[in-house]
Amino acid sequence: MTSDSYTFAKNSMSLYDIINKRRDVRAQFSGESIDTNILKKILQAAHSAPSVGLSQPWDFILIESESIRKQFKEHVEIERESFNNVLDNDRKGIFANIKIEGILESSLGIVVTYDPKRGSPAVLGRNTIDEAGIYSVCLAIENLWLAATAENLGVGWVSFYKEEFLAELINLPNGIKPIAWLCVGPVTHLETVPDLERFKWRKRMSLDDVVHYDSWNNRSLENKISDEKLD
Amino acid sequence: MTSDSYTFAKNSMSLYDIINKRRDVRAQFSGESIDTNILKKILQAAHSAPSVGLSQPWDFILIESESIRKQFKEHVEIERESFNNVLDNDRKGIFANIKIEGILESSLGIVVTYDPKRGSPAVLGRNTIDEAGIYSVCLAIENLWLAATAENLGVGWVSFYKEEFLAELINLPNGIKPIAWLCVGPVTHLETVPDLERFKWRKRMSLDDVVHYDSWNNRSLENKISDEKLD
Repeated sequence: MTSDSYTFAKNSMSLYDIINKRRDVRAQFSGESIDTNILKKILQAAHSAPSVGLSQPWDFILIESESIRKQFKEHVEIERESFNNVLDNDRKGIFANIKIEGILESSLGIVVTYDPKRGSPAVLGRNTIDEAGIYSVCLAIENLWLAATAENLGVGWVSFYKEEFLAELINLPNGIKPIAWLCVGPVTHLETVPDLERFKWRKRMSLDDVVHYDSWNNRSLENKISDEKLD
Repeated sequence: MTSDSYTFAKNSMSLYDIINKRRDVRAQFSGESIDTNILKKILQAAHSAPSVGLSQPWDFILIESESIRKQFKEHVEIERESFNNVLDNDRKGIFANIKIEGILESSLGIVVTYDPKRGSPAVLGRNTIDEAGIYSVCLAIENLWLAATAENLGVGWVSFYKEEFLAELINLPNGIKPIAWLCVGPVTHLETVPDLERFKWRKRMSLDDVVHYDSWNNRSLENKISDEKLD
């Protein structure tokens, strides 16, 4: 996993630069190895995420095995086809152009899991909302994703899989829930527009479309944080 | 929401500085107003998060209303008591010292919600894992949290509430699921150690405790990314 020739990436990007640069990567992996120190940094970034009751209910299973990756990819192909089958013909046409994973081309798979027993029996803050533990795992994933972007690595989240299949493939104990398979590694470049927008699957919404004031129905103009009002 | 006297925060912190500085804030809110441009920046950061099928299934309801905040706080007090009741006496003693929310002291509440219909009927990547939409909302929350930290604001995630109560309080339509109530605002300072560790509720784990290789059971030393091996 080490590489002497690896060029250390710039960390001078601001948080906002990183957030805007981040993409869900499928086709741009170069396959070069990840420097071990950088891998540790992005894992530590994930591990420093907030978690309900300080439960830190995540685990990271680093998948280098070619055999595991091939088996996973075959499974994902089946699930891709199963999604394709629910689409109408127009959508099928668009979907055919969209690559959904870089499982073999990326340098490393990272499976992120959720352990509901971590910090039990009484997890502070999970008494009324049991899913809060899963929420914490996602916060860790976003930290990892941003840190990887800061290090000029790409990350692609694969979600075309059945949890039971992945759990069995990497021997997860009963109760440990896989949340994500992340494809991680150096990239040739990051696209400036998300793939699903580039291939006309869906457009990004404006911020105005998702902001409300005090009540769901209140989107009154005088309160609106609109592009018109600011800047 | 604007304040002429607001001092613009430094954005020169690196991502790792921000990740390490970030805390779950309850007691340190100063109550000063949030500059509107900065509020827009942190919301835009959230809105720029990755989302399954580019569905962007989040909404942000900005809660300034004193009346709504008071009603929510009263509800949270009841849920706090209900959690307290499941604790043994030792834990009750520790929990008594822990403040769990800054609903009234913070400058703004931000309720973040999940809309499962966004991007439907066929959300790319949500065919086998329906919860992937909720995962996306959490990624947005972490972006918001980090951006707020970069702007010297504090964020505290309140999860001591029943979803139905909050949904009714702010008139969420059927099917829209509240994921978080975030307390947001300027702070006097951020603690360097998480509250739950400071008050001896729970200690943070080491990264080694959560890293595995190719299979859950493989934690062999020769592969281990340990503190001893690196640095």
